[in-house]
Amino acid sequence: MNIKTIEWTGGIDGHVRLIDQTLLPGRCAVLSVRDVEAMWEAIKVLRVRGAPAIGIAAAFGLVLGMQQIDDAATITQAQQKLQQLSDYLAGSRPTAVNLFWALERMLKVAKKTDTENTAQLKQKLLDEAQAIRDEDAAMCRAIGKHGAGLIKEGSTVLTHCNAGGLATAEFGTALAVMFTAHEQGKKFRVFADETRPLLQGARLTTWELMQAGIDVTLICDNMAGHLMSRGEIDLVITGADRIAANGDAANKIGTYSVAVLAAAHGIPFYIAAPSSTFDLSIPDGQQIPIEQRDRQEVINFGAQPVAPENVQVYNPAFDVTPAKYLAGIITERGLIDHPSSDSIRQMLQ
Amino acid sequence: MNIKTIEWTGGIDGHVRLIDQTLLPGRCAVLSVRDVEAMWEAIKVLRVRGAPAIGIAAAFGLVLGMQQIDDAATITQAQQKLQQLSDYLAGSRPTAVNLFWALERMLKVAKKTDTENTAQLKQKLLDEAQAIRDEDAAMCRAIGKHGAGLIKEGSTVLTHCNAGGLATAEFGTALAVMFTAHEQGKKFRVFADETRPLLQGARLTTWELMQAGIDVTLICDNMAGHLMSRGEIDLVITGADRIAANGDAANKIGTYSVAVLAAAHGIPFYIAAPSSTFDLSIPDGQQIPIEQRDRQEVINFGAQPVAPENVQVYNPAFDVTPAKYLAGIITERGLIDHPSSDSIRQMLQ
Repeated sequence: MNIKTIEWTGGIDGHVRLIDQTLLPGRCAVLSVRDVEAMWEAIKVLRVRGAPAIGIAAAFGLVLGMQQIDDAATITQAQQKLQQLSDYLAGSRPTAVNLFWALERMLKVAKKTDTENTAQLKQKLLDEAQAIRDEDAAMCRAIGKHGAGLIKEGSTVLTHCNAGGLATAEFGTALAVMFTAHEQGKKFRVFADETRPLLQGARLTTWELMQAGIDVTLICDNMAGHLMSRGEIDLVITGADRIAANGDAANKIGTYSVAVLAAAHGIPFYIAAPSSTFDLSIPDGQQIPIEQRDRQEVINFGAQPVAPENVQVYNPAFDVTPAKYLAGIITERGLIDHPSSDSIRQMLQ
Repeated sequence: MNIKTIEWTGGIDGHVRLIDQTLLPGRCAVLSVRDVEAMWEAIKVLRVRGAPAIGIAAAFGLVLGMQQIDDAATITQAQQKLQQLSDYLAGSRPTAVNLFWALERMLKVAKKTDTENTAQLKQKLLDEAQAIRDEDAAMCRAIGKHGAGLIKEGSTVLTHCNAGGLATAEFGTALAVMFTAHEQGKKFRVFADETRPLLQGARLTTWELMQAGIDVTLICDNMAGHLMSRGEIDLVITGADRIAANGDAANKIGTYSVAVLAAAHGIPFYIAAPSSTFDLSIPDGQQIPIEQRDRQEVINFGAQPVAPENVQVYNPAFDVTPAKYLAGIITERGLIDHPSSDSIRQMLQ
């Protein structure tokens, strides 16, 4: 199971190829993204989604944008252009910390004084974006390795949304743990929350797990508590979009409910996320902004209206799960058991 | 706000008119149901739904079925026919206790020895079915009256699925409480869970509340916990499909999760249901059978597939909320505070 979610093809004048996730699972189509505007749109409408994949997309987006500036331009002009592009891309998905992390990392490269000319800068930016992608793939493998021990032979795992290969360069975060346990020959079952309103669980997670040959069963979000009450869930693993210094974790709407339900049934709840997901500048989850998304996502389904057209809608993209509900956070550096500000700082040092 | 969900029109050779709820909220169409087979289908595919409305539909279904037997038939022949019709209708929705309750009540009428001929029996059955409908309408009013005090000026109420006028003859159970509080001039807000997979909350509850001029906001089921964590929900009121002797209550899948989440946030959780919903022959919720519904409900949305075609699906129609999670059960006889076997028996005597 090694889906290339997003990759650069060709040299400095090349382009990005990414799986258009809005078409899955009906069709696995690879989209060629050839300019920064197309990348902005791809991030905005979730053709590419999942915290790490968004970071990679943004980094490649900068490289695409820099193709618009001539090699003869001065370094100062190139740096100004880069800043503009970064500001533009930052607006595509304002809650995704990996987006900002990747953009900042790219800007840092540009600020190094040893760059002689714009052509060289452009090459350095492409190299850095490639490095972000390659490091992400390696991180996912490491997360899988550190988490796989949590899944025992015969376990049943619940997951929410899609923290799979499609959310990263490849292999995933929460699903990396499952892919690795599967590679180790363990037999286990997975229940996947469909994850309203955009159904990433139904469309993407079931598809990825089935591709890998893992036993997966789809449920509606409101069925998880019932399964837990029947003793049918042994552990929960989800991804995260942003984790505060104290371990409070923002993830897809509904994650908080799953965590509270897991706690009420004595089921351990884990988050799997690369260390880039931590935002140590934010002391706790209260400070994480919650993006409100379009009401159309809730009142229509494809072309079909499912509610009165003029009904009021509340549609937060994320919720925040307080650290007290987390049995652990699985990172590429290891497992942070019962995370706290101290244990998180220690692991990230 | 007084929607006639289901009613008989004409005399003994008349027929049933019911709102086809599969077409709401796009279209409010009244369907004429002229034979028992059409009524079986209407119950099965949820054209008519909600525990009390199903009972009324079944009673009228028997009257429709009895139109097939000639007035010249013997009472014994008529009673045999009635038993066959009852068995047939009982298979349309095996979890709905009101279905059995209504069928049994109709059969009792037929067993009374003072009936002189088949024509008279048919008239008595129609009268009884009408009585079931009229009593239901009166019960809903009484539930509204007993529950309205729970909604304070400025409260925010969460509800799940549709326990509205559309689930009953008219006025509803959980929504009757809201309609009555609204008639009393109270200002309050309602959040309605969309209620996957069939979206009764999105399609029906929002529609009914908007018709009544009540401030309602639609959410996906997985958003309720997040709202609770922000202190935005003051109380929860849902309906029930079957309540065991100890107060354990079966209701639409997802109700249990809402109840556990409410408990975790110190929010009182109420069920509103007529006394016919109680099944005292069942000591507790463990004995309530959980109907599994068609996988197509989860993997398709209208004509649009939303998951891999061959994915495994778990699709229980109901879950059971243990009595310990209930702040109260609102019945037409009064409010059962913190229900127990004793307090329930007392109220139902």
